[in-house]
Amino acid sequence: MDRLKDAFDKVLEKDCDMAVISKNENIFYLTGFKPSTRAFLILVDEPFLMVTSMDVDEAENSSIDVFEFKKSEDVKEKIESLSPMAVIFEPSLPIGTFSKLKGSFKFIIEDIIGDLRMIKEKVEIEYIKKALRIAEESFMEIRVQGVEARIAADLEYHMKVNGSMKPAFDTIVTSGVRSSNPHAEVSFNRIQTPVVIDWGATWRYYYSDTTRTLVMGEDEEEILDILLDAQKEGVKTAKPGVKASYIDKVMRGVISEYGYEDNFIHSTGHGIGLEVHEPPSLSANEDIKLEKNMIVTIEPGIYIKGKFGFRIEDMILIKKNPKILNTLPSRI
Amino acid sequence: MDRLKDAFDKVLEKDCDMAVISKNENIFYLTGFKPSTRAFLILVDEPFLMVTSMDVDEAENSSIDVFEFKKSEDVKEKIESLSPMAVIFEPSLPIGTFSKLKGSFKFIIEDIIGDLRMIKEKVEIEYIKKALRIAEESFMEIRVQGVEARIAADLEYHMKVNGSMKPAFDTIVTSGVRSSNPHAEVSFNRIQTPVVIDWGATWRYYYSDTTRTLVMGEDEEEILDILLDAQKEGVKTAKPGVKASYIDKVMRGVISEYGYEDNFIHSTGHGIGLEVHEPPSLSANEDIKLEKNMIVTIEPGIYIKGKFGFRIEDMILIKKNPKILNTLPSRI
Repeated sequence: MDRLKDAFDKVLEKDCDMAVISKNENIFYLTGFKPSTRAFLILVDEPFLMVTSMDVDEAENSSIDVFEFKKSEDVKEKIESLSPMAVIFEPSLPIGTFSKLKGSFKFIIEDIIGDLRMIKEKVEIEYIKKALRIAEESFMEIRVQGVEARIAADLEYHMKVNGSMKPAFDTIVTSGVRSSNPHAEVSFNRIQTPVVIDWGATWRYYYSDTTRTLVMGEDEEEILDILLDAQKEGVKTAKPGVKASYIDKVMRGVISEYGYEDNFIHSTGHGIGLEVHEPPSLSANEDIKLEKNMIVTIEPGIYIKGKFGFRIEDMILIKKNPKILNTLPSRI
Repeated sequence: MDRLKDAFDKVLEKDCDMAVISKNENIFYLTGFKPSTRAFLILVDEPFLMVTSMDVDEAENSSIDVFEFKKSEDVKEKIESLSPMAVIFEPSLPIGTFSKLKGSFKFIIEDIIGDLRMIKEKVEIEYIKKALRIAEESFMEIRVQGVEARIAADLEYHMKVNGSMKPAFDTIVTSGVRSSNPHAEVSFNRIQTPVVIDWGATWRYYYSDTTRTLVMGEDEEEILDILLDAQKEGVKTAKPGVKASYIDKVMRGVISEYGYEDNFIHSTGHGIGLEVHEPPSLSANEDIKLEKNMIVTIEPGIYIKGKFGFRIEDMILIKKNPKILNTLPSRI
């Protein structure tokens, strides 16, 4: 129940007396109940859940009160019956739902739970490491040959059999010229070089996220070297007290030295946990300072349009001596 | 470009002169461009896309103008530069984003594209049928034995190798007492009877969705009979001009005759296309009238808490003689 208490403290800090938590990951984080459909955690002094009939049984396994609702108006009624002075809604709430919930009370829009979730507890670190272990073991069990889609299918199969609930995201296997698009979808082409594989597993709702690029020949090796150099410098800086944007700056600096500043077309990394992408973002505009026990990805990439693309992504535990959680070699 | 024209006609019908389309499926439906991250289609007389740097290349393959944005404020500026009188925003837009886009113009919140998407064009019906064919063929290739998670992994593997971009949703394989929860997650238990398998494939972003229940023994056979009876009556009514809620009423009626009215704990079905669940919902409160070339699922279920659960789900093309698109037998 400490998380609920910490969350309600955040509500009071914002001069509010209620928060309507609607993001399923946040509800899970605070209550241990994972909604299968729309649900609300009404965060007041004595917090309670509002769920649909489908979820009542599941929700009752949590240690807080559960009320069933049929339509959004039921939730609004319940909120108004408590006569809140000022309510926090989450930025992710769809406006369609919001327009049915808003009442005569004052409100602000603020993500208060994201802040809490950034710092991982011991058990969360264990779950994330377990997800990563499944992903890495599964990678070792497959052979990178044949058709892109089959490699992705193999990897996802092994992850599931090894205990992953589901792939953390659609596994990316792109090769040859298609690798120059960081978001290319899996095709039925036979692999060419280089091969970018970006994949992750799920353990108890916690995700892993890793990328490896298989290269061939001196030119490709050289680009991989640049990425490894950049990543090494990035990881070194990933310490408590450092601004998230600073890691991006350092890594971009290394890549620029080699003349590829225009080819690193995405941000340096992102927090990971109950979502694959969660705060903090390691990007140029992120002012958040890193803290101990955050987990972030560090993923330098170089993409040359019409030619090829490369990316290396590892998961880092922020501490005085930043720890790379991956055990898979960077060159494979 | 007809879809864009039809969509803009909808805007004018609502006495507006602009719609900000933010739902990725709707952007894809109208332009053929599938955003990999946040994007906006500004639907005005001469519509254009606003995308992030990651998506510029991809977006330029569409036949309309593309502008890059870095932050939501850039989009707001662009909107205001056109001095719209009244703007439509979509209900799915997160309030966090909405609060950055709203300006001095009037606005309404309305889903105008969902209406268009309900009626499937010929090519869409073909894609949905292809997704279904992949799902059914893949099912025939696996053996329902061993551990639940392995069956799910097998099915997803075969779907991907057979051309599915990704599973339509996390494949459900639940058996024995766990089948009484329609949303139970896959476990590492060896299967028991009955076995509920709910799965779907994806073809060119279009989904399929099917459920089969494998039963054993007379008691289970009897319940399956009730579902098949209910489904048959439901499908018969799935004709143009019939209210969506009426199918739910008819099917619920059959199940009630057998005394299981409290055990059919979800709605009768849902539209399917670029989303697994899309309008119309076949539920008690849905006033939409069915029209020719809608595609819906019809999925009666009986769940007896602590004992077992059953569900049969097929995909139906609405027409004068409603057509079941599935070819897999209901009893397997």
